[in-house]
Amino acid sequence: MSELTHFNNEGRARMVDVSDKQVTLREAIATGTVIVNAEVFAKIIRGEMKKGDVLAVAQVAGIMAAKSTSGIIPMCHPIVITGVDISFTADEERPAIDITATVRCKGETGVEMEALTAVAAAALTIYDMCKAVQKDICITDVRLIKKTGGSSEEVES
Amino acid sequence: MSELTHFNNEGRARMVDVSDKQVTLREAIATGTVIVNAEVFAKIIRGEMKKGDVLAVAQVAGIMAAKSTSGIIPMCHPIVITGVDISFTADEERPAIDITATVRCKGETGVEMEALTAVAAAALTIYDMCKAVQKDICITDVRLIKKTGGSSEEVES
Amino acid sequence: MSELTHFNNEGRARMVDVSDKQVTLREAIATGTVIVNAEVFAKIIRGEMKKGDVLAVAQVAGIMAAKSTSGIIPMCHPIVITGVDISFTADEERPAIDITATVRCKGETGVEMEALTAVAAAALTIYDMCKAVQKDICITDVRLIKKTGGSSEEVES
Amino acid sequence: MSELTHFNNEGRARMVDVSDKQVTLREAIATGTVIVNAEVFAKIIRGEMKKGDVLAVAQVAGIMAAKSTSGIIPMCHPIVITGVDISFTADEERPAIDITATVRCKGETGVEMEALTAVAAAALTIYDMCKAVQKDICITDVRLIKKTGGSSEEVES
Amino acid sequence: MSELTHFNNEGRARMVDVSDKQVTLREAIATGTVIVNAEVFAKIIRGEMKKGDVLAVAQVAGIMAAKSTSGIIPMCHPIVITGVDISFTADEERPAIDITATVRCKGETGVEMEALTAVAAAALTIYDMCKAVQKDICITDVRLIKKTGGSSEEVES
Amino acid sequence: MSELTHFNNEGRARMVDVSDKQVTLREAIATGTVIVNAEVFAKIIRGEMKKGDVLAVAQVAGIMAAKSTSGIIPMCHPIVITGVDISFTADEERPAIDITATVRCKGETGVEMEALTAVAAAALTIYDMCKAVQKDICITDVRLIKKTGGSSEEVES
Repeated sequence: MSELTHFNNEGRARMVDVSDKQVTLREAIATGTVIVNAEVFAKIIRGEMKKGDVLAVAQVAGIMAAKSTSGIIPMCHPIVITGVDISFTADEERPAIDITATVRCKGETGVEMEALTAVAAAALTIYDMCKAVQKDICITDVRLIKKTGGSSEEVES
Repeated sequence: MSELTHFNNEGRARMVDVSDKQVTLREAIATGTVIVNAEVFAKIIRGEMKKGDVLAVAQVAGIMAAKSTSGIIPMCHPIVITGVDISFTADEERPAIDITATVRCKGETGVEMEALTAVAAAALTIYDMCKAVQKDICITDVRLIKKTGGSSEEVES
Repeated sequence: MSELTHFNNEGRARMVDVSDKQVTLREAIATGTVIVNAEVFAKIIRGEMKKGDVLAVAQVAGIMAAKSTSGIIPMCHPIVITGVDISFTADEERPAIDITATVRCKGETGVEMEALTAVAAAALTIYDMCKAVQKDICITDVRLIKKTGGSSEEVES
Repeated sequence: MSELTHFNNEGRARMVDVSDKQVTLREAIATGTVIVNAEVFAKIIRGEMKKGDVLAVAQVAGIMAAKSTSGIIPMCHPIVITGVDISFTADEERPAIDITATVRCKGETGVEMEALTAVAAAALTIYDMCKAVQKDICITDVRLIKKTGGSSEEVES
Repeated sequence: MSELTHFNNEGRARMVDVSDKQVTLREAIATGTVIVNAEVFAKIIRGEMKKGDVLAVAQVAGIMAAKSTSGIIPMCHPIVITGVDISFTADEERPAIDITATVRCKGETGVEMEALTAVAAAALTIYDMCKAVQKDICITDVRLIKKTGGSSEEVES
Repeated sequence: MSELTHFNNEGRARMVDVSDKQVTLREAIATGTVIVNAEVFAKIIRGEMKKGDVLAVAQVAGIMAAKSTSGIIPMCHPIVITGVDISFTADEERPAIDITATVRCKGETGVEMEALTAVAAAALTIYDMCKAVQKDICITDVRLIKKTGGSSEEVES
C-alpha cells in the first residue's frame, strides 16, 4: 500500500523532494462542469457570439491560475509550465458548460494540479460573472482525465 | 430579466462599480465535496487523529485562498474580509470529505466568491496530498448554501 | 514649493501616512496608446469582431493589474477599489489602439496609480499578444486625464 | 487564562472574526537586528553615503512586505494599512544594523504582524545583499516594542 | 503573413506551447521615458546625490516587476530569469528620465515582456513618487531595443 | 576583499547575472528560534498532541514562503525549488521553539534565502497565533547552518 508522500517522518506536511526525478515532457488534462439554468446558459452563449464574452474572461482566469498553482496549493512544487490551453463545450440539455484544461511542462513532476486549478478558476469565474442572474449555480466533476510523462502509469478515463 | 452586470456598454468585461452600495455586515457559506476511495478516506481519518493531517493543510489553503480571491477571479472586488472558518465532515459511506467555508466582511459587496474559492482551494489541496494514492479523486457540488447581508434576498438551500 | 512626500526625515522612502485624510469617493481616469502597424491593427480589429479578441485579454489584464497596484508600485497604499472599467478606441490613421481606464474607490487616497497601472498592463498585454507579428510596437502617452475626490484640485487635460 | 483565539471549536485554525471590533486608528512599532562583521558593516555604511545603498533596497523590501503580510502569515487579516516607515540605526560596536518599522491603519485589528513582517523582510534583504561577503550573518531580536489603538492595553518595552 | 500565435483553434486565447523550443541564453533590452518638468527633474537629481533617491526605489520596483511578469501579462510564460539590470539617464533638456532594462534567461522563450514590464514598473514608480509635485507627468516610448537568443532574428533599433 | 555583487557599475542594485553558473543540486538549511513564556509553550505543545496545532500552520506558512522568496526579497533570483521540509524542536528549558528549514533545488544559484525566509515565515506565524496570550514573544538567531552545491565552499556551523 503506497503511503501519503506529503508527510515527513514526524508526520508533518512537507514539499516532497523531486530532485532525483527525471526531467521529461509532461502533460495533464483536467475537466469540470458548471451547471447553470436555461437563462444563464442563453446569456453565456449569446455573449460568445457577440463581444460580451463570459468564457473569454474565464479562459484568462484559468490560464493565470495555472501559473499561480504553487501559490495556492501549499505542497505543490513551483513548475515552469510551457503551455496552457482551455476549451469550453456548451451542453444545452442539462444545461451546463464543460471546461477542459490542458497543461504541459518539461520538469521533474507532473502538472495535474495546474490543470485542475485552471479548471477550478475558470469555473469560479463563470460563477462570478453569472451569479447576479442565478443564485444556485453548481460546480461539479472537477477531475483529471489524462496524464502523460513521468514514471507513473498513464491515467485515462 | 436581470442582465449580466459584469459587462460595460461595449459588451466588454468590467469590475462593477459598487461605490453606491451600502456597507453592511455580510456573510456567505459555501460547500463542496471531495469523493475519495476507502483507502484514501482511511488515511485522511487516521491523519486527523495523529499529526499527519491532510485537513490541517487544506484548512490553511482554504483560508489563504479566501484572502486571494480577487487576485484569482478577474472581476471580483478586493474585499477586506473580517473572518474565515472552514470545517470538514467525513462521510464514510460514499466515502467523501465535505468542506464548508464561512466568510464574513463589512463591505459594499458580498463574499460568496471568497467562500467558494476557499472551498475550491481546500478541495484541491486534499486532492494534491492524496493523488499519489488514488488517481481518480473527484471534486463535486461546489456551491453557495447561505448568503446574508446586502440588498439582495437571502439565499438558502 | 511642495516637497516630495515619499521621503522620511532621513531622506529615505516611506509609505506616506494618510490616516488623517478624509474618506471620500475618488475617481481617476488614465489613458495610453499602443502604436502598431497596419497588419497588427487589422488583426486586432478582426479579432474584435470574431472570437480571437486581443482586447478582451488586455481588458482582463488591466482590471487585474489595477487590483495589484500596491504590490507593483512600492510606495502605493493598498486601496479597496470599488470599480474599474477599461475601454479601447481603434485609431486607424496612425494606426494605434488608445486605452482608457477608469478606477473608483472610497478611501483616504486617490486611485491615479491604479488607473495608470491598468493602462500599462493592458498596453503590455496587447504588445505581448502581437509581438510575434510586429517587432517594433511602441507604448506611448501613458498619463492621467482626470482625477476627482480628495482635497487636491481636479486634474483635467 | 486566555485561550489561543486562532482555533475553532474543532481545534482547527481559523481566521478570527473581527467584525464586531471597533474601527480605531492603530499603530505598531517593531524592531530587529542584523548582526554583521566589520567588513560588511563598513560596506553598508559606505554604501549609504554613496549610491550603492543596501539599506535603500531593504527599506523598499520592508514596506512591500508590510503590504503582503496577510499573504504570508496564514491567519492574518487583510488590513488596509495607511502608512509605513522604516528606519535603520548602525551600531558600530557589535557591529550590527538595527531596524525599526512603524505601521499604521484604521481598522478592526492591529498591525503588529505587519510591523514584524516589515522588519523580517528588511533584515532578510540586508542578509541577501551581503551574503557573498559574510557567510554567518545572524538576524536577532525581532519583536514588538509598541502597540496603540484597539481595546487591549498598550504594549511598550 | 504570420498569425497571432496566442489564439487556439476556436479563436480563444491560450498560452502558446513552447515545449519544443530550444533552451538558449536569451537577453532582451527595453527602454522607456518619463517626461517631467524642471522642478521634478531637479528634485530627482538632487535625490540621487543625497539619500532621497526616487531612482533607487524605481530600480527595485523594476527588478521585482520583471520577476512578476507572468502574473501580470496573462499569456506570458513563467520564466526563470537569471539576471536583471536597470539604468537611468537624466536628460536635462526635455527634461526627462530615460529608463533601460536588461533581462537575461536560459529558456525556451524570450524575455522581452520581462524587460518591458520592468521599464513600465520603474516608470510608474517615478510617476508615483513625484505626482504630489507635478500633475501631468507622462510615460512614453516604452519599446524593445534589442533581443538576442532564440530562433527569430535579432531585433535592434 | 570580495565586493558586494548586488550593485551595478553605477552603484545601483541589480539582480546579479547567474547565466554562466553551473546547474547543480543545491541544498540549504537554516534555523531560527521563537522564545515564548511557559504558558504559550504549554499551549503549543498541547496543541501538537490534539488537533489545535500552531506548528502545523507554521509549517505550511514556511513552505509557502519558501516558494515566494523571490517576490519578497528584491534581488533574489526566482528558483524552481524541488523540495522543502521544516521541523520544530520544543525546548522546555528556555522555553522556546526551534525551527529548522531545509530547501533543495537544481539550479544556478543557492537556496539559502529560501531556507531563511521559510524560517522567518514559520516564526512569524507562531508569533501571530500566540500573540493574544503573550505580548513579548521574540524571534532570534535566524541564520544559515549548512549550504551545499555550487562553487563556493560549504558553510557549516
